This record gives sequence, C-alpha cells and structure tokens, in this order.
Amino acid sequence: MQFSDRLQEKNSHCATVTDIQTVSILGATGSIGTNTLDLIARSADRFQIESLTAYKNVSQLAKLAKVHNAKFAVIGDETKYKELKSYLAGTSIEIGSGETGLIEAGARQADCTIASIIGSAGLRPSIEAVRQGHRVALANKECLVAAGDVFMSEVSLANAELLPLDSEHAAIHQVLCRGMLDEVKQIIITASGGPFRNWTAKQITAATPEQALRHPNWSMGAKISIDSSTLMNKGLELIEAHHLFAIEPERLKVIIHPQSVVHCLISYYDGSVIAQMANPDMRTPIAYCLAWPGRMASPTEPLDLIKLQSLTFEAPDTERFPALDLAISALIKGGSAPNIMNAANECAVAAFLAHEISFTDITRIVEKCLEKADQQNLLQPVGTIDEVLALDHEARQLVGRLIDQN
Amino acid sequence: MQFSDRLQEKNSHCATVTDIQTVSILGATGSIGTNTLDLIARSADRFQIESLTAYKNVSQLAKLAKVHNAKFAVIGDETKYKELKSYLAGTSIEIGSGETGLIEAGARQADCTIASIIGSAGLRPSIEAVRQGHRVALANKECLVAAGDVFMSEVSLANAELLPLDSEHAAIHQVLCRGMLDEVKQIIITASGGPFRNWTAKQITAATPEQALRHPNWSMGAKISIDSSTLMNKGLELIEAHHLFAIEPERLKVIIHPQSVVHCLISYYDGSVIAQMANPDMRTPIAYCLAWPGRMASPTEPLDLIKLQSLTFEAPDTERFPALDLAISALIKGGSAPNIMNAANECAVAAFLAHEISFTDITRIVEKCLEKADQQNLLQPVGTIDEVLALDHEARQLVGRLIDQN
Repeated sequence: MQFSDRLQEKNSHCATVTDIQTVSILGATGSIGTNTLDLIARSADRFQIESLTAYKNVSQLAKLAKVHNAKFAVIGDETKYKELKSYLAGTSIEIGSGETGLIEAGARQADCTIASIIGSAGLRPSIEAVRQGHRVALANKECLVAAGDVFMSEVSLANAELLPLDSEHAAIHQVLCRGMLDEVKQIIITASGGPFRNWTAKQITAATPEQALRHPNWSMGAKISIDSSTLMNKGLELIEAHHLFAIEPERLKVIIHPQSVVHCLISYYDGSVIAQMANPDMRTPIAYCLAWPGRMASPTEPLDLIKLQSLTFEAPDTERFPALDLAISALIKGGSAPNIMNAANECAVAAFLAHEISFTDITRIVEKCLEKADQQNLLQPVGTIDEVLALDHEARQLVGRLIDQN
Repeated sequence: MQFSDRLQEKNSHCATVTDIQTVSILGATGSIGTNTLDLIARSADRFQIESLTAYKNVSQLAKLAKVHNAKFAVIGDETKYKELKSYLAGTSIEIGSGETGLIEAGARQADCTIASIIGSAGLRPSIEAVRQGHRVALANKECLVAAGDVFMSEVSLANAELLPLDSEHAAIHQVLCRGMLDEVKQIIITASGGPFRNWTAKQITAATPEQALRHPNWSMGAKISIDSSTLMNKGLELIEAHHLFAIEPERLKVIIHPQSVVHCLISYYDGSVIAQMANPDMRTPIAYCLAWPGRMASPTEPLDLIKLQSLTFEAPDTERFPALDLAISALIKGGSAPNIMNAANECAVAAFLAHEISFTDITRIVEKCLEKADQQNLLQPVGTIDEVLALDHEARQLVGRLIDQN
C-alpha cells in the first residue's frame, strides 16, 4: 500500500467537507466572533448560523444576524432587548436576552459552538453547549482556569468534542490529537515575552498601563494584553493545557519566543520535537476548529521563514515576571486556587488600568489574595458551577480590600 | 469524552509495544546499521535480530552477529565467505555470501527490515525486503532516486509499510502520516547549506575535497558530504519525497537552515505549519522506524532551544549551487532522468575526491551527461530493475568519457 492510499484509508471515516455544518457563536461581536464570521462568509456554502450572541453591542449583533441569516440572536444586556427587537423587526430571526437567552443559545443544537464569551459570564452558556454532546470550540478561559474540573467532567459526561480556540492550545491539539500522550516528554508553550521583555526590574516597577498595552505581536483586548505583559497569561494557559490535555504540571513548560510564530513544541522520548507555527492571526486556529477533523483555507498570511530570517528563544525570567510561577503553584495546589487566582488577577489588572496600583502590584496583590484565601480555608475542591461563582465573588471582595489597603 | 480517553481509543489498534519484533539489518556495519544496533541493545527485550549483512567488514559482522544473537549473517564480498565461516564456527548462526546471500537476507521474514546498503548494490535486497509485505525502513537512496517508479510499485503490490530512514523524510512522515495530503500546501525540506554556504562563487571554484568534506552538523560518509556541499543531496531528497509521499514537484521546496535542527516543515491551507525538529542524531529517525506506530526512547541529546537561542532560515542560492535546480528538472522530466543523474553524480563526486576535476565541474559534468543521455534517447520510462541497472551502467560510461575529456 502506498503512503497516499494509506492516508486516504486512514481518513475515510472523517466527515466529508461538503456537509453543511450548523455553527453557533456565543460572543459574536468580539474578536473571535468576527474572525469566525469572516471565515464563514468566505465558505458560506459549508456553514449555516444557528445562534449569535452579544453582550451590549446590539446594532452590530442585529447586523451580523441579518447578514449571516442566523436563526436566533441573543443580547446579554436585558435592557437592550427592545432595541434588538426593533432592529430585527420583519425578519424571521428569533430573539432572546439576558442569561436565560445566552444559555438557550448555548443549548440550541449546532454541529459546532464557538464559546467565546469573555469572563465568568461565559461559564453557563459554554457548559450548555458542551451538554449538547457535539463540538465546542472554547475561547473562554474561565471554563478551564476557574472551573477546570467541573467543566471537564461535563465534557466527559456529554461525550462532547472539545477543541481549544486559541493559538497555543489549538497548536498543541494539532500535534497531540494523533499521538499518544504517554510518549510525550514535554509540552512547551511559547510566550512573546510581552513589551517589558528587555526592561530592567527597576523600569518595570514604573511601567504605565499605556506601555503595558503595547503587545508586540498580537492585537488583543486590554485585560489579555496586561496578562501578557506580566506573563500571567502563560500561567493561565498552562492551567488550560493541564485540563485540556490531561497532562500533569511537571510536563508543561513555557519558553520565550519573541516572534510569536512558533506556538507550541511537543517533545517525545525519541528526541523528536513537533512544533506548530503560523503567523499570529486568530483565523488559523478558528479555521482549524471549524473544519476539524479536516482543514479549510484561511486568509492568514502564509508563514515566510526566509523573510523572517530568524526565530529566537530564551528562558522566562521569573524574577522580573513572578506571575508565571504563581500560576504554576496555583495549578499544582489545584481545587479552587486557580479560580481565586484568576478572579484576583482580573480585579488587580482592572485596578492597574485605572491607575490605582502599580504594575508590580498586580502580581503581588494576587499572591497576597491567595495567601489570605488559604488562611480563610477557601482553597478547597469545587464540585459545581455555583461554588465556582461563589468563590469567584469572595475572591473579588478579598482583593478589593487588598487594593484599598495598598 | 476527554482528550486523553480519545487518544487512548484512537491508538488502541496499535501494536502493543511489549511484543517482540524481529529485525533484519541490510548493511549492519555502516552508520545506520551500528546506530540501529545501539538502540536495539538498549531495548534488547523488545527486539530479536534475524539477518545482519555487511559488504567487506567481516570481523565486525561476525562480532555483531554473535553479540546480538543473529540467526543469519551474510558477507557481500564472496571472497570473505570462508573467513566469516571460521569466525562463526561453533555458533548456530547461519552464513551466506554474495548477492544471493544479500537477497536471501532481505527475503527472510522479519517484522522490520532496515534497508541501509549503500548504492545500487542495495536495490535487489531492498526490493526483496519489500516483497515480504512487512515494514521496511529505507535508508538506501537508489531505490527511490534511480528506481522510484519500479520500487514504489513493488511497495504497492506487496502492501508493505515503507518508512523513510533519514532525518528529513522521517520528519515529513511524522507530520504527514496522520493528515490528508490534499490539505497540504507545501512540503519544505531544510538543508544546512553545507560548508560553502557563505563562500563567493569564485572561492567555490577553487574548493578542495578536504574543504568540501567538512560538513557543519552531520558526520557522514564522503559521498554524501560532497553532495551536501553541492546541494545535490537536497535534490536527491526532493526526488525521494516525491516518491515516498506521492506529492508533485510543485509542492516540494528546499530552505536553507544552517543549524540542521528543523528537518521539515509542512504548511497547510489554513496557515498552520507543522515542523519536526531534533538534534542531528540518526538514532531519532531510526527509533521512529523501529517503534512505529508507537515511539521508543532514544539517547539523542534533547533539543534545547534556549541553549540554541536562534534558528535561522534563508533561500538557497541556485547560482552558486546549481545542482538543486538540476535535480528538480530531472525529477520533473521523470523516467530514467533521476537514475542517470544519480549515476553521473556518483562518478563525478568520485572524480572530484580523486582530484581529477574541480568542485564546480561536478554539477557541470552531471548536466552535460544528462544532455548527452537525452541526445542518445536514454531518458525513457523504466519498468524493471534490470533496465535501471543497465541505464546506470551506461550513464557511468558516458560520464567517464566526459571526465576524461574535461
């Protein structure tokens, strides 16, 4: 049998790419949502939109629902329900609002649900999507960082196909999905190093929000840009990788790679390392999730290594960027520790952006919050989403007091 | 279903790694052979040696056969048969010699045959191994370069599992074996660029064999070191990749990567590029072939990108290194063109090593030989190994005359 025949045979069980897929997008007006719709518009004959949701941007939601012929449009902010209704008057598009509406959008049957609502608001709708037992492309970090154990047992129960929708984890999935985990020596996630990679410890102390927001390679929201500059983002990604790929913390590693072209490296016991690379463009991981287990074209600029000339790598400096080690210790601690760390970090980042605390205060306050939580016996295993949300609330109050005392 | 369960299920059909495999090594005293035996000695409970062969090195062959408890030892040089017999007196190891012996070694049933006899002498024994219908790890270039069509139809007929045993093609196999070829945009093979990468055209004209033999990263035989310095080696590898992976020349590309750490890059239509990396150590691709479809440990030094710091890439300069384009045009021409080119190159390299021609003469004479062969209507499709060997012979006579006239 020739190699090409063998490939053909191996893949004969895969869904034909000509089947029309129904897709729901929870968080349609954000960066992931609009990039997904951009891709879908380029292959409109392959996809049909079931639900689209947004939190506040009602005019944009209405426009997208009409252009993409969605069946169901949901606005998270209840006060905008009437506005959405008037925008969509005369169409056959069903309308929903509030958390009930978002949950219904997640629960409505779709071959693939893009779960890209930001923050803890994304927890329940994402879990509803998982419960369908179909494919869920997950961009919401809280499902894994704050509620990893709860969320993954829902995935198991529903026998859902969970695909990660960010560049690093989609990269790992591309390499790992067809190998055996016990042959893997290490999973390495790359980090750009952020805008302060070459700053001295003293310079970093005086870093302003404006400076921290200048991410070298990706254009992202404010929260994630700050997380990239502290390296907390990579810490959160290690926690996600742990849950997504059922891999212990000891086999996870971060490496600084300023060009953000290599997204992951998986090393095997025979000395082989398989890496995934791509220009930084979210449409590549989105296309991967939409077309899985096949592939589809994306307008991402093709990688040109000759033009790039050089890919560089260095060790992360955990002295100047202590957030990474903090996240790793929360991951090892397990239970509610990552949940509390995540809530504390969100508040601390908001306080930094509001010029209430300094850049180095962010990680210091998160660390203090975890210590306090430990003293108050809050670092416990969690079994339900209600517990996750209650602890999230408590952590935010705790960190609020710490910020006030700062 | 969690990712780890899914992996488990996907791989449940794979052979258990605890089964004992029988292995034959055609070319046991060369670099591939000794590296294979090094790996096997480290996992002696998993492997049993069926046949070992060598061409001239009878004492080493006898020693290896005894140490590894081989069932059958073959010396290619008939005149050394008696010597082998006396070395192995008192053991139960069967003995063979000459081409008949080598062919028998290939034909004897083994779960995996390492086909690493150098040159056209490897053709018939490798084909015998393929005809078993089991796994063949191929290191002999002639099977694909000189006899690609004939050899691959034998692979098809026997339904054999052909694995490539060199770093670039094993790298491609690792990435491709679990994807679909029609999603692949390009297969990129890396080249170190050889010792003359930064030399001017004028300097290259005066290059001596001693200078050409200094390969920057791999320690290899003289012939392949010269081929690396002319870039003909990458041309031959493109021809091999074409046959191994049934991929057209237009989707094959070479890129210069002086560190020899990235061995291949496969780019997909969604913007993803999957690359295989490893420190330059033949034991990694050998371990890949021995353990396929699993993986086994290899003592290859683990890749340390932080220590390496930088991976660089540049375009090959086809002005200073015209052999690459010459090989591509032979690949596109097809039929006997790669066969004749390969024979001509072997003779020209030998003449260069003997100080009979200059470095730049090598490619010039190979090109002239192809022109002459075309004029004499020798560039024809070939259907049998006899035809391949007859054309090889004719090309060598042709190039001999060209060298004399030089």
